[in-house]
Amino acid sequence: MADTRAPGRPTVLGLAAELAAGRTTSRALVEAALARIADLGGEGARTFTKVYTATARAAADGQDQLRAAGYVASPLAGLPVSIKDLFDVAGEVTLAGSKALDDQPPATSDAPIVARLRAAGAVLIGRTNMTEFAFSGIGINPHYGTPGNPFDRSRVPGGSSSGAAVSVADDNAIVAIGTDTGGSVRIPAAFCGLAGFKPTQPRISRDGATPLSTTLDSIGPLANSIACCVITDAVMAGEAPELPRPLPLSGLRFAVPQCYLMEDLAPEVAGAFAAACTRLSAAGARITDTKFPEIDEMPAVNAAGGFAPIEAYAWHRELMARRGNDYDQRVRARIERAAPMSAVDYIKLIAARADLIRRVGLRTAEFDALLLPTIAVTAPLIEAFTRDDDYRHLNAHILRNTSAFNFLDRCASTVPIQPTGTAPVGLMIVGEYAADRHTLAVSAAIERALA
Amino acid sequence: MADTRAPGRPTVLGLAAELAAGRTTSRALVEAALARIADLGGEGARTFTKVYTATARAAADGQDQLRAAGYVASPLAGLPVSIKDLFDVAGEVTLAGSKALDDQPPATSDAPIVARLRAAGAVLIGRTNMTEFAFSGIGINPHYGTPGNPFDRSRVPGGSSSGAAVSVADDNAIVAIGTDTGGSVRIPAAFCGLAGFKPTQPRISRDGATPLSTTLDSIGPLANSIACCVITDAVMAGEAPELPRPLPLSGLRFAVPQCYLMEDLAPEVAGAFAAACTRLSAAGARITDTKFPEIDEMPAVNAAGGFAPIEAYAWHRELMARRGNDYDQRVRARIERAAPMSAVDYIKLIAARADLIRRVGLRTAEFDALLLPTIAVTAPLIEAFTRDDDYRHLNAHILRNTSAFNFLDRCASTVPIQPTGTAPVGLMIVGEYAADRHTLAVSAAIERALA
Repeated sequence: MADTRAPGRPTVLGLAAELAAGRTTSRALVEAALARIADLGGEGARTFTKVYTATARAAADGQDQLRAAGYVASPLAGLPVSIKDLFDVAGEVTLAGSKALDDQPPATSDAPIVARLRAAGAVLIGRTNMTEFAFSGIGINPHYGTPGNPFDRSRVPGGSSSGAAVSVADDNAIVAIGTDTGGSVRIPAAFCGLAGFKPTQPRISRDGATPLSTTLDSIGPLANSIACCVITDAVMAGEAPELPRPLPLSGLRFAVPQCYLMEDLAPEVAGAFAAACTRLSAAGARITDTKFPEIDEMPAVNAAGGFAPIEAYAWHRELMARRGNDYDQRVRARIERAAPMSAVDYIKLIAARADLIRRVGLRTAEFDALLLPTIAVTAPLIEAFTRDDDYRHLNAHILRNTSAFNFLDRCASTVPIQPTGTAPVGLMIVGEYAADRHTLAVSAAIERALA
Repeated sequence: MADTRAPGRPTVLGLAAELAAGRTTSRALVEAALARIADLGGEGARTFTKVYTATARAAADGQDQLRAAGYVASPLAGLPVSIKDLFDVAGEVTLAGSKALDDQPPATSDAPIVARLRAAGAVLIGRTNMTEFAFSGIGINPHYGTPGNPFDRSRVPGGSSSGAAVSVADDNAIVAIGTDTGGSVRIPAAFCGLAGFKPTQPRISRDGATPLSTTLDSIGPLANSIACCVITDAVMAGEAPELPRPLPLSGLRFAVPQCYLMEDLAPEVAGAFAAACTRLSAAGARITDTKFPEIDEMPAVNAAGGFAPIEAYAWHRELMARRGNDYDQRVRARIERAAPMSAVDYIKLIAARADLIRRVGLRTAEFDALLLPTIAVTAPLIEAFTRDDDYRHLNAHILRNTSAFNFLDRCASTVPIQPTGTAPVGLMIVGEYAADRHTLAVSAAIERALA
């Protein structure tokens, strides 16, 4: 597997090669990133809730010294990486894009994924802005501002890992770490023209990350290529940060699920998706339109809101009682709506989910992946969300395709497929439970065929 | 590891050797078992809800023919095994010790553990009586009668796998398969002087078993020795049915947890436990009294009833609405009491459990096992449960020690330790999560030292 995506865009392996050849230094990369973040004409102030200026410089110097001594921990060594504002960093208060946690004590230790990134040599460049408490796919934050979409700054970046996506698109970081509960990695990646990966949920420890949904939360990278995601995912999972052998696209079997997830697509999304499928077929992939009646049962199963609102309410109840007025009131309202849910309804939701997972799995087992548009629309204008009703409906529509596969307990990536110069569109590649490495290898083959 | 327990009592490996030597046949073993079950002076009518007379004879003949042809699937081949009334058998209605399911359709396939037992050559001798829906540790069943304790027929057998224990004690089966949600394998095994094993919960598929608590249910064997449990557990887990090498007791490290589980022990239980510890120490085991303040937090965490009642309610709600008058009204009342629980309280219970599991694990990691009495009392008289209040209090007291380790997500065995001729007392040996094979090897070493 090679690193082929996004000509002209930097990648982890590209920068690692530059460092190895002595053509740049970690300090130079970090200084360039810091300068872009500090550019008052840019999005830096809305992309980051905190910039690690001093420690990033010091860590970069340390990595340069280590490299000179022959110590290179991983391809991420010396490269600037951003982390979403909800990860614990020892000595810092974890705010999760909110004001309501500002009276909490600092974290006593790094989240495991932060510790692993540091051990792999990554230089933490800053904490990225996000939808408050990660609870929306749009990326608007009333407390810390909304970073503009790199394609068009008047559009939303997607959320909840909004700053994560913009930090990569604007070359503030080579990789951003986000979380994905209903699409919060894949949506901002797709809206901003990046690759992104949501692992199978238990693959990577969620310890030290402010939870939204204990059942659905997962941690994944946003970057300029699938290969960048492979390296970063491996580091966070505690695996060897290596690329698998390239997988030939020819003979791979894909299903396009015929179900509600393929309905109501914006014309530019439908067009880019059809064109991508045509190119993949021409490259030898076998793509089958397949009926998925089980997937069509999902909206009814989740009619009472699903896992995220009630699991969020369990975590937020006390905090909302004390600091509710400091919340984004749209986030607060969506969490509070779940309060009356009974234990029986929750237990039945768990059982209904397990049953759906089992039945969908019988149908997907013969395919290497499902293919569908990551999001049904391209990034809307920020001003499209002024009215609460529009916010609610458009948020649900944006989350529709991605959240289906959190519910179905899958891993999934997104790669950009829009024609050059048009608004980004993502192709979502959905793998089997725990088939993360295979799904990433398949995603890289697709990325290469579409390059 | 050898099969040393219970001199004079039959064991899986003993009977397998008899069959291998041609000194008996499967048909002869099955006929003897059927004759004992049919003995009108015995407990057969209350021990079984269904006896597989015809198919057991046919299967025994088949196993004898297979053996003659050189086919012996496992040490269980040709041996009579009983299954608790809650396991699906293709073509039969699964009643779970109730009358309320008698209008349900027959199961369309065997539970996976039933299929594995059949594939291992076991001869299913019958379905054993149980507490209705497995929801009590006593073993009284108002619909199908209460099998008398083999030590004293006026005492309860323990539950919920009541018929399971009596079927082994009365030589109706060489192994009985039970389920254990709060002690339903270990309690009847201990009350009836048998060995029993509750595996770590996810180890063995619960598919095709009527659920009590999706979080806590586990499936395990009751038998005359730990070696019998090792073989049967391996078959149900899909592993090789072999005994591990004998583990020397000398140098094994045990903790006796100083906490509420060691309080309010009946004198004969305290005496048998102290004597067993003395003998194990003399044999070289290192036994330490260790404070476990975390375990003392458990009653408060479970004050609202814990997992079983609410998870049972989720399954039973519709059935109780339709057939509630056909329930054991004591079981019904205990399930219905959970109905008002909120989803938030349930989610917080999950989180509190995870936290306790983690903290207890920090303290247990240095030991091979915890040792404590399986039950705080010996089997009470059946008539002791006439009043509902006595039923409630005594049931909670009987379940106290065993249920702690379902909640803490451990594996655990029980072996008999009473002086000859006195009421049975069990020693519980509690292992780490997923350390099932080690815990069984440790249990066999203890059993041997106490033989």
